[in-house]
Amino acid sequence: MKISGKNTIGFQLSQLGEKTFRSFDPARNVENETLFYEATPAEVEEAMKCAGAVCEAFAQLPGKKRGDFLRRIALLMETNQQVLLEEYVRESGLKPARAQVELKRTLFHLNAFAELISEEGWDLIHEDPAEPGRQPTPKPGLTKMYFPIGTVVVFGASNFPFAYSTVGGDTVAALAAGCPVVVKSHPMHAGTGDLVAQLVVQAAQETGMPEGVFGHLQVQDLEIAQSLVLHPVTKAVGFTGSFKGGMALYRLGQQRPDPIPVFAEMGSVNPVIVLPEVMAENAAGIAAKIADSLTQSSGQFCTNPGLIFVTENPALGEFRHALVEALRTKEPETMLHPAIHGKYNELRDRVKQQPGVEILVESGTGGQPNTGQIQLSQVDAPHFMDNPILEEEVFGPHSLLVVCPDSNTLKQVIQGLDAQLTASVFAKAQEFLGQKHLIFLLQQKVGRIILNGVPTGVEVSPAMHHGGPFPATTDARFTAVGTDAIYRFLRAICYQNFPQEYFPKKLNSKEF
Amino acid sequence: MKISGKNTIGFQLSQLGEKTFRSFDPARNVENETLFYEATPAEVEEAMKCAGAVCEAFAQLPGKKRGDFLRRIALLMETNQQVLLEEYVRESGLKPARAQVELKRTLFHLNAFAELISEEGWDLIHEDPAEPGRQPTPKPGLTKMYFPIGTVVVFGASNFPFAYSTVGGDTVAALAAGCPVVVKSHPMHAGTGDLVAQLVVQAAQETGMPEGVFGHLQVQDLEIAQSLVLHPVTKAVGFTGSFKGGMALYRLGQQRPDPIPVFAEMGSVNPVIVLPEVMAENAAGIAAKIADSLTQSSGQFCTNPGLIFVTENPALGEFRHALVEALRTKEPETMLHPAIHGKYNELRDRVKQQPGVEILVESGTGGQPNTGQIQLSQVDAPHFMDNPILEEEVFGPHSLLVVCPDSNTLKQVIQGLDAQLTASVFAKAQEFLGQKHLIFLLQQKVGRIILNGVPTGVEVSPAMHHGGPFPATTDARFTAVGTDAIYRFLRAICYQNFPQEYFPKKLNSKEF
Repeated sequence: MKISGKNTIGFQLSQLGEKTFRSFDPARNVENETLFYEATPAEVEEAMKCAGAVCEAFAQLPGKKRGDFLRRIALLMETNQQVLLEEYVRESGLKPARAQVELKRTLFHLNAFAELISEEGWDLIHEDPAEPGRQPTPKPGLTKMYFPIGTVVVFGASNFPFAYSTVGGDTVAALAAGCPVVVKSHPMHAGTGDLVAQLVVQAAQETGMPEGVFGHLQVQDLEIAQSLVLHPVTKAVGFTGSFKGGMALYRLGQQRPDPIPVFAEMGSVNPVIVLPEVMAENAAGIAAKIADSLTQSSGQFCTNPGLIFVTENPALGEFRHALVEALRTKEPETMLHPAIHGKYNELRDRVKQQPGVEILVESGTGGQPNTGQIQLSQVDAPHFMDNPILEEEVFGPHSLLVVCPDSNTLKQVIQGLDAQLTASVFAKAQEFLGQKHLIFLLQQKVGRIILNGVPTGVEVSPAMHHGGPFPATTDARFTAVGTDAIYRFLRAICYQNFPQEYFPKKLNSKEF
Repeated sequence: MKISGKNTIGFQLSQLGEKTFRSFDPARNVENETLFYEATPAEVEEAMKCAGAVCEAFAQLPGKKRGDFLRRIALLMETNQQVLLEEYVRESGLKPARAQVELKRTLFHLNAFAELISEEGWDLIHEDPAEPGRQPTPKPGLTKMYFPIGTVVVFGASNFPFAYSTVGGDTVAALAAGCPVVVKSHPMHAGTGDLVAQLVVQAAQETGMPEGVFGHLQVQDLEIAQSLVLHPVTKAVGFTGSFKGGMALYRLGQQRPDPIPVFAEMGSVNPVIVLPEVMAENAAGIAAKIADSLTQSSGQFCTNPGLIFVTENPALGEFRHALVEALRTKEPETMLHPAIHGKYNELRDRVKQQPGVEILVESGTGGQPNTGQIQLSQVDAPHFMDNPILEEEVFGPHSLLVVCPDSNTLKQVIQGLDAQLTASVFAKAQEFLGQKHLIFLLQQKVGRIILNGVPTGVEVSPAMHHGGPFPATTDARFTAVGTDAIYRFLRAICYQNFPQEYFPKKLNSKEF
């Protein structure tokens, strides 16, 4: 299979515009070959019209049928993995091993959602039987079920060309829910998106999906991107990226005459707290875990451990030393794109210049282009608390060790933090039991608390919650990872007095 | 017990301001006696501070303890029902029988939420056990649980002095979730709110709740009301009322530096569709049901059947006649307040003046003040489709019969409607089976579909969904009635690698 360079509308490829762009190979530091045609307003309109037109047909398909579609996508991606993996690496600079892990994860979530919706009754919320004899008034029978909210627009993320893009968690959750999806491909991996989109279309055709359940648009232009959020057919938006980008889309969604939910996952600094007793016991082990977490894939994760909190204690010197040494063994890796690399250097330079900040590790570039130089700095609690810049996310292999004089100051510092996706606590069993208030503070601030582990490595599980209060996300109640992500794209309908033979489960089947 | 006329902050009564107001008895057409002291900015600040300060303590109480609190409120309200019912009637003009039904409903939901949260594990969402031996990486144990979002501000509704006000569905759902609540009392029934608030404080004290879990402010002033939505402690808002009022609060919530959810239930015209075969069979029976639904409590329900859709058919004359006759037997009733009565007359007059509208019923006033004159008009589909005014809610005993030439036009008219809380379809079994597309249209537009029944009478059940897409509400995914309303005020947290002995269920108990 070959990259088309075009937009996908219904089952067709489309190329109406004249504006083009190329993706970039950050490892070789050159543009890639293929020209991509930016979607025009007419193509946006056509893609949205197509999606809107099949809402009914798609919603009425039994979950099992939609599950077949998702499973077929997974199968086709597996079959064509060679070409996908090569393009992924060429457009991201990420290593082949990472590409493979991410592909597997994507196949896994396609199959996990397929399994969820193939189960009879997955969309039944509650049934409450009628009591015709109740006094003073008879009680009606009530059946509450999920119903898809309508067309969803998904913005691909730069750092997950498979798992948070064309058929990433948002797209697959929406398709599983029964919502047509229009993807705004991330221009940094336009080719990967293009190839995946072709496979989605093939899967849709092979499994009898209505034409329009999936669209894929190549968009760099901000106004075109905004028009997708503002389009009347759009009923929800999924986004993973920067705070600035997420908030812009969120505000657009709210300002519509009919406001729509914009699920934006906007990054996090993922505080890691290492308590003294566990530090005394296992300084080197914890340091190694954090160093791995911090540097893998050049630290380009929303769950990167960007802040490490410790208190002054006898083991601190050993821990710090171990962390520095562990980081010194790491090879710096290529970042996703010169723009991301440039921004990273700008932000880590800014950290260096802040009062009280001392550099502990700063790796070289390895003589390669677009390398994310590993950087660890240290600052004391008073300087940290005085300076909001130090709490800002630095997207890349960067972390800041914040040293607190005592545990009360540690709690004060945590209290002052913004909300985050995750927090980690390293502690011995007894030590942890004394931290009731700290855990409560973290509960108020994050969507996931990890005990004796690092924030990276987000399991795809029904028990995962990848989210957190604002500003980590725009809606703390929903997760972006795991099968519960489907609930972002469903709403409830109560069917009152519907006898069994009329029942919506039957309505949704072909027999009706 | 006596009305205090004051604000409730923590366990104390407070009266710092000088601005006062009185509630109104619409049946006697006079102001009631008690002076109420409008909350000052300082009192707002104090109430919010109190609430914010006990978030931790309240969240950490086991559900069963909070359940005791809710059950105690119900018990105290039952014990003191005489004084509550009298004040309710004096401030609303609603009949004593209605007051009793609403009190029972309120006691029922207090107990239903208490029961929900008293069950061990009610707040557990998913558990996914660890697999330490998984390759290539061990799988961590994940436990996902609900956690309260923080302080909730509830705006009392004019038309439900018990069931949607001081301890209405929003307040009780939030308290059950573990969120402190500050109620902005509805000034039309300030005395009822005052009495109920005193009982809530007594219940809180008797069951050992932390001071601050509940505040009750008397507020008429718009700026004071807005300050509650904008206060940094506020994490969510519950509102039931007009579209204009709801949207104003919603926009305020969105414009905060940290946007918060504002759950506004903003009214509905609740289309009722009567299909021809069932009409031929049971014209009089259906007409009687609709007439009852339309006139009870002077039609002052968000589920009032404000639009009735029929197609030209041989039974239409009989149905219309039966409906007119049934309405003529109804006594018009007092409305809640002269302001609501005035607005009702203004809106029903406006309907009368629209092209193509023909009055079928217009009752007298019965010689009483503030009477909601029962009004039924008729219009044909073309005039209806041309005129958005005819789709607007007229809050009171008012409905419009829309006559469509055929079933295709009926679908077109339904397609053109805004989203609503409910839709009703009267149909024979076979007739209904032919209406697949109509049902799909309704699914897209409403939160509850009623077969062969009227929209009024919203069961308090886990299977109820009282909500609907915008503009019926600001968030289609959540219900305002039934125990699922608790999910508006909870978010998920994933606990990773927490061994059983550390477990948050244990964290939340006193033993920890």
